[in-house]
Amino acid sequence: MRAVALGGGHGLHATLTALRRITADVTAVVTVADDGGSSGRLRRELGLLPPGDLRQALAALASADDGGTLWAEVFQHRFGGSGALTGHAVGNLLLAGLFEVLGDPVAALDEAARLLGASGRVLPMSTEPLEIEGEVSGLSNDGELRTIRGQVAVASTPGRVERIELRSSRRPEGAPTACPQAVAAVLGADVVFLGPGSWFTSVLPHLLVPELHDALVRTEATKVVILNLVPQPGETPGFSPERHLDVLCQHAPALRVDAVIADRSSVPTPARLRDAAAELGARALLADVADPNVVGLHDPDALADCVREALGRRWNATGRDGEQQEGTWR
Amino acid sequence: MRAVALGGGHGLHATLTALRRITADVTAVVTVADDGGSSGRLRRELGLLPPGDLRQALAALASADDGGTLWAEVFQHRFGGSGALTGHAVGNLLLAGLFEVLGDPVAALDEAARLLGASGRVLPMSTEPLEIEGEVSGLSNDGELRTIRGQVAVASTPGRVERIELRSSRRPEGAPTACPQAVAAVLGADVVFLGPGSWFTSVLPHLLVPELHDALVRTEATKVVILNLVPQPGETPGFSPERHLDVLCQHAPALRVDAVIADRSSVPTPARLRDAAAELGARALLADVADPNVVGLHDPDALADCVREALGRRWNATGRDGEQQEGTWR
Repeated sequence: MRAVALGGGHGLHATLTALRRITADVTAVVTVADDGGSSGRLRRELGLLPPGDLRQALAALASADDGGTLWAEVFQHRFGGSGALTGHAVGNLLLAGLFEVLGDPVAALDEAARLLGASGRVLPMSTEPLEIEGEVSGLSNDGELRTIRGQVAVASTPGRVERIELRSSRRPEGAPTACPQAVAAVLGADVVFLGPGSWFTSVLPHLLVPELHDALVRTEATKVVILNLVPQPGETPGFSPERHLDVLCQHAPALRVDAVIADRSSVPTPARLRDAAAELGARALLADVADPNVVGLHDPDALADCVREALGRRWNATGRDGEQQEGTWR
Repeated sequence: MRAVALGGGHGLHATLTALRRITADVTAVVTVADDGGSSGRLRRELGLLPPGDLRQALAALASADDGGTLWAEVFQHRFGGSGALTGHAVGNLLLAGLFEVLGDPVAALDEAARLLGASGRVLPMSTEPLEIEGEVSGLSNDGELRTIRGQVAVASTPGRVERIELRSSRRPEGAPTACPQAVAAVLGADVVFLGPGSWFTSVLPHLLVPELHDALVRTEATKVVILNLVPQPGETPGFSPERHLDVLCQHAPALRVDAVIADRSSVPTPARLRDAAAELGARALLADVADPNVVGLHDPDALADCVREALGRRWNATGRDGEQQEGTWR
């Protein structure tokens, strides 16, 4: 089964960790709009793709053998202290070196994947660094929307993010271009996953790269949205599960989805979620997919079970309220 | 044939590049006293072994296949620009990460060697960072010797280096401790090479680590000194080939050597070199080992031929002056 997962950061890491339990043919398509932390420093200093989300995805797909485990640990290791290297992840520095030497981010990521013995492929959604702009309300008393720039700014605004746009940071007037291999992966996939993750800065950006958006609309793959377990402070405070789907709809009105996976205990009103999912053409699938020990984290085994069951084209579950749900898709 | 090469920097790179043409069992034993450049910054910032000379040695032993060639290029690649990473070699950063994650420099270097498909092993002469102190004359008019500290200071002093000492930078009062695997490699070797390279800062330091010195004295390996092609400005300006051997003798009076390899055109007075070599118990071998196109660089093929012929226990050459030299050793 050819699975493609779109996202970034910890959310994508969760999807990939679950998907690798199901298939060895996983392609991660990763956001490249980060401008914070180690990635932001590398991006500003060297003019390269921000490597952090790509590194996370590689680590999630690393082989479980000794070599893969060691290199994943080295990739994720951050230098301490208080000097010029503080906070840099070793994998970010290595990816930056590979980008510069090979001159082609896709070749560089393939080489890193080989080093990690990755069960799958990691691709950037675009081969050029991108910049997020957010339209934010509530930042002033005049009721006007304000435009704020950069992933960190959008993810941490005290205002309310209404919508985002995406620009090439090298060609501010041009639309962002998609990585061709990412477009091909989406078109050739059996199933495509969107989310979980920071909704405005890791999940929605993929829909704003025109060629990637079109591929998502055109692909015959089963399309699955995995919702977040908790609203993210700053970016989506107080957002209900159905509001997450509403903004998805708003940013990509042409997109049809087959299924929406949500954690049962994270959905206060299942009926509303089902309605919002139906707006996207999707069935809402509620299951216990949260890690019982860590708030906000998916349990990879439970998520894999849910995905597996869903992709078995038959999904049965009994809601907490005893309500019987049963469905087939596609 | 088990070959061990002691040194650092470009000189060791030259020896290793030649030796890998002769045997796949090469162990590099590398100085860890560098305090300049990328290595010095990493050493000061993270308290680790300076990785630069180790990286150079790894690159010299990297496999000639596609993977080894690429990773050697990545290891040697330096970041440009003018930011916090400027001048750092990617391999230095990766070695620093491996040192921190594995906590054992030898295991880290073995892992890096595996990545590069290295034909051999790279070991530090000590598993703790070391500091060079130089006794230098000519820095004042009072005729007194001055002590200067650090590899960069010794390598670039306007004075004349008379002798050096080596200290642990973590235990300034203690003698430097040898890497046990390096001691074992010297004791188990068939042939050990010392030089070429920065004489005071890359070649002699090995003799000042007591356990390594004792291993060099005790080993039954054939011991070969390879002399520099040109005196190094700063460190050994105006030093004749025989003066290089004199300071070697002075720093390790107990050391016996079997052969001294020198480039024919770099030896103005062969008779003096032979006398100085004889003081060490060695035969002087003069051959055309310089790269005709790059001043100061050995030609790896010519050096390999010279070593091969020498280790064939029989060495014949006709001097430029027509003088016939013929010798056997051991």
